[in-house]
Parts: sequence; C-alpha cells; structure tokens
Amino acid sequence: MAIEQALEELADLLEDRFTRSEAELEQHGHSEAYFANTPPDAVVFPRNTNEVSQIVKICAAHDCPVIGWGAGTSLEGHALAVRGGISVDFRHMNKVLDVNAEDMDVVVQPGITREELNQELRHTGLFFPVDPGANASLGGMASTRCSGTTAVRYGTMRENVIALEVVLADGRIIRTGTRARKSASGYDLTGMFVGAEGTLGLITELTVRLKGQPEAVSAATCAFPDMGAAIDTVIQTIQMGVPMARIEFIDAASAGMVNAYSGTALPDAPHLLIEFHGSDTVVAEQAETFGELARENGALSFEWSTKPEDRKRLWAARHNAAYAIFAAFPGKRGLSTDVCVPISNLAQAIAETQADIDASPLPGPLVGHVGDGNFHALLVFDPEVPAELDEAMRLSSRMADRALELGGTVTGEHGIGMGKLGYMQAEHGEAWDVMGQLKTAMDPQNIMNPGKLVRSN
Amino acid sequence: MAIEQALEELADLLEDRFTRSEAELEQHGHSEAYFANTPPDAVVFPRNTNEVSQIVKICAAHDCPVIGWGAGTSLEGHALAVRGGISVDFRHMNKVLDVNAEDMDVVVQPGITREELNQELRHTGLFFPVDPGANASLGGMASTRCSGTTAVRYGTMRENVIALEVVLADGRIIRTGTRARKSASGYDLTGMFVGAEGTLGLITELTVRLKGQPEAVSAATCAFPDMGAAIDTVIQTIQMGVPMARIEFIDAASAGMVNAYSGTALPDAPHLLIEFHGSDTVVAEQAETFGELARENGALSFEWSTKPEDRKRLWAARHNAAYAIFAAFPGKRGLSTDVCVPISNLAQAIAETQADIDASPLPGPLVGHVGDGNFHALLVFDPEVPAELDEAMRLSSRMADRALELGGTVTGEHGIGMGKLGYMQAEHGEAWDVMGQLKTAMDPQNIMNPGKLVRSN
Ligand SMILES: Cc1cc2nc3c(=O)[nH]c(=O)nc-3n(C[C@H](O)[C@H](O)[C@H](O)COP(=O)(O)OP(=O)(O)OC[C@H]3O[C@@H](n4cnc5c(N)ncnc54)[C@H](O)[C@@H]3O)c2cc1C
Ligand SMILES: Cc1cc2nc3c(=O)[nH]c(=O)nc-3n(C[C@H](O)[C@H](O)[C@H](O)COP(=O)(O)OP(=O)(O)OC[C@H]3O[C@@H](n4cnc5c(N)ncnc54)[C@H](O)[C@@H]3O)c2cc1C
Repeated sequence: MAIEQALEELADLLEDRFTRSEAELEQHGHSEAYFANTPPDAVVFPRNTNEVSQIVKICAAHDCPVIGWGAGTSLEGHALAVRGGISVDFRHMNKVLDVNAEDMDVVVQPGITREELNQELRHTGLFFPVDPGANASLGGMASTRCSGTTAVRYGTMRENVIALEVVLADGRIIRTGTRARKSASGYDLTGMFVGAEGTLGLITELTVRLKGQPEAVSAATCAFPDMGAAIDTVIQTIQMGVPMARIEFIDAASAGMVNAYSGTALPDAPHLLIEFHGSDTVVAEQAETFGELARENGALSFEWSTKPEDRKRLWAARHNAAYAIFAAFPGKRGLSTDVCVPISNLAQAIAETQADIDASPLPGPLVGHVGDGNFHALLVFDPEVPAELDEAMRLSSRMADRALELGGTVTGEHGIGMGKLGYMQAEHGEAWDVMGQLKTAMDPQNIMNPGKLVRSN
Repeated sequence: MAIEQALEELADLLEDRFTRSEAELEQHGHSEAYFANTPPDAVVFPRNTNEVSQIVKICAAHDCPVIGWGAGTSLEGHALAVRGGISVDFRHMNKVLDVNAEDMDVVVQPGITREELNQELRHTGLFFPVDPGANASLGGMASTRCSGTTAVRYGTMRENVIALEVVLADGRIIRTGTRARKSASGYDLTGMFVGAEGTLGLITELTVRLKGQPEAVSAATCAFPDMGAAIDTVIQTIQMGVPMARIEFIDAASAGMVNAYSGTALPDAPHLLIEFHGSDTVVAEQAETFGELARENGALSFEWSTKPEDRKRLWAARHNAAYAIFAAFPGKRGLSTDVCVPISNLAQAIAETQADIDASPLPGPLVGHVGDGNFHALLVFDPEVPAELDEAMRLSSRMADRALELGGTVTGEHGIGMGKLGYMQAEHGEAWDVMGQLKTAMDPQNIMNPGKLVRSN
C-alpha cells in the first residue's frame, strides 16, 4: 500500500523521530472537542525546514496525507487524521530565531507556544499580543487565524503575521513576505496561509509583530442588570474611540461557575470584564470614560484592579471559564459554538440564542469577545446520550443560521476543520468553490490535511 | 478577429455607455508615470454588478482583455491596456450603499473616491482613514493595496477592507466575507483580491472599516540637523507606544520645493511632519513625549498647529510634494520609487540612497511614510533625453536591490503593475511562481489585466 511505502521511507529518514507507538498515535488522534479519536498512521518530529520538505516530498510521492500538529488545542477537529497519513508534530521546531526590538517583530519556529514566546520576550519590553486562552503553538494559531481576548485592540493572527516560510504540497519551500511592515508586492500569500488550516502547506517559520508592554494597565469587572445594557456600553465605548485592550462578556450562569471554580466573587449577573493599556494618564482617562458609560447604562457594580496579581487572577478566571463550566457538569462534554456578527446585531444574536438555550434541556453558558461581536455558547451534553449531542448540534446550527441572517460568520476565531464544513456553502456560496479551486491549484493530490475546510470529494 | 466580436456585443449591451472615442481611449491609456500612452480598444461604463458580470462573460467568450479603471492615479502602469481589450471604468458605480455607524463600517461601490466618501461621511462623526494623497477610487485603492500618510496608525487597505463583491474571470459573482469584524471561516479571499491589481477579478462592492473622527488633533513640523536624528526620533516614539496618526519625512531638498510651491516656511533642513489623534489629554501627552524625544535627538525647530486651517495647509503641502517637485523642474517627468524596509534599516537605506542620488546628475528629492519604513525618491528626468530615463531606472533599481538586501520590499504601497515586474523574481523567488499558479487557477485564459503582477508568458 502506498502509505506503507511512505512510512518506511519516513522511518529511514527520521529514525527515532518517527513513531507508530500507540500512545503517540492516540494523542495525535485526540481533539479538545466532541470528535471521536482519529489517529494518524504515524507521527514525525522534524527538526528543521529541510526535513519538513523531505517529509512532504516522500508523502507526495506516495499520496500519503500530511497533517500539521501544533499544540492540538483546536476545536473543530482540525488536526485529526480523517484519512490516515502522518501527523507532523512541530514540538522540536520551537525556537525564537530573531528578536528585532527596534522593528518590534520576532522570527520564530512554528512549534513555540505563545506562553513560551512571551516568556522569552519578557526582558525586552515587548510582548506578542494574540491570546486565545489556550497555550497554543504559533503555527497552529496562524493556521486557524485565531484570536481571543485581545483582538479588539491588537487584531487577530491576520493582522499580526508579517511573513511566513511555508513548505508546499510538493515540498518546495517558499517565503511569503519580508520583514517590511507593509508591502504592495503581489498577491498576499501570507494572508492565504493564515487561516488555511494546513490544507495548503506547512508553516515552518513565522515573522510576527510585537507590541510594547504598556506602561500602565487597569482591569475591571462590571456587572449589569441585563445583557443589553452591557452590549450598549461596549458599542458606545468603541464609538467614543476608547481603545479597550480587552472587553469580555460573561453571562450570569458562567459567572456563577467561574466563581465556584476560580474563587472569584462575581455577583450573579451578566458581566463585562475590561482591560485598558497605555500610559498612566491615558489609562485613567479611558477607565473614567468607560465608567461613566457603564453607569449611564445602569451598571450594578464595578471593581477596578490595577494590581498585577488581581489582574492575573481575573484573566486566569476568564481563560478557565471553559474548565469552570466542565467542572460544574462532571462527566459531560462541551460543544463550543463561535459565531461573530456585526456588533449592532450582537444583542439580538445573544438574546435569541439565550432564549433557544433556555427552551432546551441542555445548559449553555455564554461568554464572548464582545468588542468584536464574537461569542460562544458552551453547550454541555452527556457523551453517553446520543440525543444530547444531537440537541447540541441543533442549537449550534440555529446559532450559525442566525449569525448568517444577521450579516455575520459561523466562526469568528475557531475555524472550520470538520465541524463547520456543513455551513460553508451557506456562508460563502460560490466563494466556497473558489476556495476549492485554490486548494486544487496548490495541492492537486489533496494530501495536505484532507477532509478539512474545502468541499470533500 | 475575436476582440472585434467582443466589442460588437459590448456595444449592443451598453449602448451609449460603450465608447471608442479617441479622447476616451487616450485618457484610459494614460498613466501618472513615465509609461507611454497605451490605449484600450474600447471603454465601457457599467452601472451595476450584473452588467459587469455580463461584460466579463462576453470578454471571456472572445478572449478579450478586461482592465478595471478607477481614478487612473496608479504609478506603475497598472491600468494600461498593454494587450488591448477593454477598460472598465467604474465612474457610474460610485454610490455609498450603506453606512453602518454602530458597526463603524460602510458598504460602497468601487468607483467612489476617498474624498467623495469622506464628504458623505462628514456628518456621521466617522471617516475612512486610508489616504494616498491622490483622490483615488476605493476599487483602485483596494486593488493596489494602497496606503499613505495614515497607515502608521490606521493600517493599509489590507487592514481596512472587510469584505468584497467580485466578478470573476468567468463572470461569476462572489462575496468574499461578511460584515463581521473578524472571521476564521476559510481562506482569506478578501485578502487575495486586495492588492491583486485587477488580475483575478473586478471588485464591484467593498465593505470597509471606518474610524471615529478624533476629538482632538494636533500636528507639528519639526526640523532636524540630519536625517539620522529624525529617524531615531521616529523609532523611539514608536517604541514608547505613542500612536502617531501620521509621521512623514521630507528631506531638505523637498522642503525647499514645498515652500516654493505651497507657501510654507520650512527651514532648509530634513523634517518630520507629525499628527496625533485622540482626546485632548491624550493628544497633549503624546505631543509632549514626542517633543522630548525630538529635543533629545537635537531637533532644530518645532512648530505645533492645533488649528484646522493650519493643519489642512500642512497636509495639502505634503500631499502636493510631488507637484511641488515637478514645478521646480518644468518640462521634466518623475519616476517615483517606493521601497519599504524594516525601520531599523531605514536610516541606512535613506543614507545610501541619498549618496547614490548625490553622485548622479539627476535630482531626486526624498519623502517618506517613515513610521512604516517606507520612502520615495522622486527621480526627475527629461523625457526628451533617453539617457536620463535610463539613469533614473538605474537609481531606482539600486534602491530596489538595496531594499531587498536590507530585508525589505521593492514596493511599500504603489504595487507592481508593469513597472516593478522585473524585481518580482528577486523579491519572491519561487513564491512568484505560486502567484502564477493562483492566477492560472482563477483566470486560465489570462483575460484579467494581462501583463501585470505575474510572470508574462
Ligand atoms: C480552553 C480553550 C480555549 C480556547 N479559546 C480560544 C479563543 O479564545 N480564541 C481562539 O481563536 N481559539 C481558541 N481556542 C482554540 C485553539 O486554541 C486555537 O484554534 C489555536 O489556534 C490552535 O492552535 P494549536 O497550536 O493548538 O493548533 P493545532 O490544534 O495543533 O492545529 C490547528 C490546525 O492548524 C494546523 N497546523 C498546526 N501547525 C501547523 C503548521 N506549522 N503548519 C501548517 N498547519 C499547521 C493543524 O493541522 C490544524 O489544522 C481555545 C481552545 C481551548 C482548548
Ligand atoms: C500624486 C500622487 C500621489 C500618490 N501617493 C500615494 C501614496 O501615498 N500611497 C499610495 O499607496 N499610492 C499613492 N499614489 C498611487 C495611487 O493613488 C494609488 O495606487 C491608488 O490606489 C490608485 O487608485 P486608482 O483609483 O487611481 O486606481 P487605478 O489607477 O484606476 O487602478 C489601479 C489598479 O487597480 C485596478 N482596478 C481599478 N479599479 C478596479 C476594480 N474595481 N476592480 C478590480 N481592479 C480595479 C486597475 O486595473 C489597476 O490595475 C499616488 C499617486 C499620485 C498620482
């Protein structure tokens, strides 16, 4: 069989960095979501770009699927080996290659995680701002076009990746840009690989933007009588041009579970969690403007924290919201939805979603990066009861349809993988065919992460 | 002949919005740069997307080249009909379709110019921030991935286009995104058409981001003893995290010509022109920080202007720099270079360029969007003396080579068109072949603006 031939050649090439051990296959067949375990035929651990190129050439010669693997935290089954093949785990390619402090950029290998990167940067006065909560790899983050709590201020991976080195489906190695901060030189290939979920090539190096660590930071939690008042406050703050660094919504249900899990003491109400970055004066002024708007919208309570420990605790609590929810429902699993709508339609999208969930037997606490119009319901179901997964899927599908009706997208940040394939036609129409044309042009054999993002044939 | 057949069908379809008049052909064969007049076979003026689709279908049926035409201000011969065919002039498709103030976006047709758009927005408290100086069309601006004086704060067209409607090379109409502010839903088709210079399809509608008109604005001119001191000030200001809305460099030669043309009174020295946007407090604080850094770097003079008329005069003077230079050399033409390098290498790039120009018989005043590492030499030559154009080309080519050596790009904002084709292999290597593959996938007949951006065959 062709794949077997590829595996033999890969074993020769990589020696002990090629494995078929049960444990590794199992681990690389696992996803953080509700998908069944789907292991690859083998896992390889390349050390450099040339090795990645050789790996892909061998796979191309034998029609063997090639699936990139970063930290495995993606939520739509992105990295599952649905057609077998090999998982290319970038854990040994995790170096910082070049910190350019004056240019505020850094060149890294794809396997480094964002926490490792920020750890290495801590003495430079700079940091990498994209923060999906999970300790994801830069290669995976770029490939999913991820974002998170800080996108409202610093953008998503789309805005923060300057250039890439990529190994194409035939093993060729290309660079998609320079370190210049802008360029009008030809098609935006960097943008094409960001969000491509490994279906067009493997990212072997990234140049990403850094930001200056702010002189002052202040964060607050602010409870509201209802969700509409919270969203109005967000919209008005944005319109005043106040650059919030983070602005997160959590509903009353989530607040309770977060309290139980993280020891916070949030009142039983919908909340905004906010952070401002800047100079002392700027942060103080922004906080004041926000405070006034919140009060005008009937905010119930307000707690500022300028101490780093308090802030750390706050954002850890927010980032652990998913785990807090799971802890409240032992033995259950979660389906995380991820719609994003124009912010003028956000209150409606959330209200209708909440009504849907209230009418359903499943719990579905809501959290959201509301400054971007992006929110998640974590639909909790019993994996032993098939009807519960069906119900979660039904709710999720209603959210997706609603997002499209309201001028939005079915995924603000998690991506398509397998889980959102069913909505691509509805969201993109003929543009989805165009994505298929591009895929065929770049990977005519369909060996790069087959079964994901584009229409399967 | 096939094109003749297409012209007949187009004339039937469009009646008086189809023309072969000498004057129109001449005007649509003209560029703002040094290229010879290269008229199309006909010009058409569609009124809506369906007409554009029909036009492209007719052209596809007869292998007739199709070239979009916005305001015709591009600088690399982008819109010239080098293989004949038709020019699609978007002047009748110039409406604002939808202002979404809460979402801070607007949906427009491609023929609207940025001044018309900002005129229509003036009562909303919002504005469209991308500013190339010239009164370009939104469709042309997206297609060249243009930017200008405000990119350092608000980004380029890449960051400001949210979604497009595009007519593909076979006449299909697609939408490349929704009004959601971010999305992880499939390949970034919006990004693929932004900067594609009309080689992949015609843009028939754009959704772009708006910004809030700042509460306070202050602008200054600041003279320096030498260029290095000016650049150091820029780098330090960026590193302090001070968000400049504009930061422009002009050399002593340009300053003199600007004075003569616009009646300003800039001292005979290299200058930075700066603008800050924000609240009163924020702007005051930023101006102070900048002032301190400038003084530490030996600034010679400093003039603040918070009055709108003064600022208007200042930026008009900057935007007219090219015309000021031409006025200083009656009868001459200009070749505008456009390199962009990592900012840590900017002082070196400018110094070496200045030395080259000093050693050449041609004048070449320098101006630059230095916050992005982007600068232009306007190389002035006598169109009647072929050796002078050769010399301008030689200087331009040395600048391009140097930009690549210093980790930059041959075009920060003007684009490739025909003028920069010769540098694409050096800048992109195999990635240029990938652009060719994408072009072939999207436009197998090569009817969309042939002879531009990708390798010609
Ligand atoms: C608790 C939790 C919270 C989360 N919160 C957020 C959030 O707020 N925002 C958000 O955007 N996401 C969030 N996520 C999802 C996840 O963290 C992101 O999708 C992240 O970007 C995945 O990175 P990774 O390194 O884990 O990628 P992986 O899961 O390893 O891979 C993701 C995809 O990228 C491909 N890939 C990986 N490396 C490469 C490479 N070098 N070259 C080419 N392709 C490659 C894979 O094949 C796969 O298709 C969350 C996940 C969890 C578990
Ligand atoms: C004095 C002066 C100063 C300038 N300063 C700057 C500057 O600071 N920064 C900068 O970036 N540029 C600058 N430029 C260049 C120019 O203004 C930009 O390139 C601008 O984006 C061109 O827009 P346009 O509408 O004139 O496009 P056009 O010249 O009409 O067309 C440009 C390209 O886009 C294509 N096109 C046009 N409309 C469409 C459409 N609807 N669909 C598909 N393709 C289309 C054309 O075929 C062509 O390839 C300057 C030009 C001048 C004359």
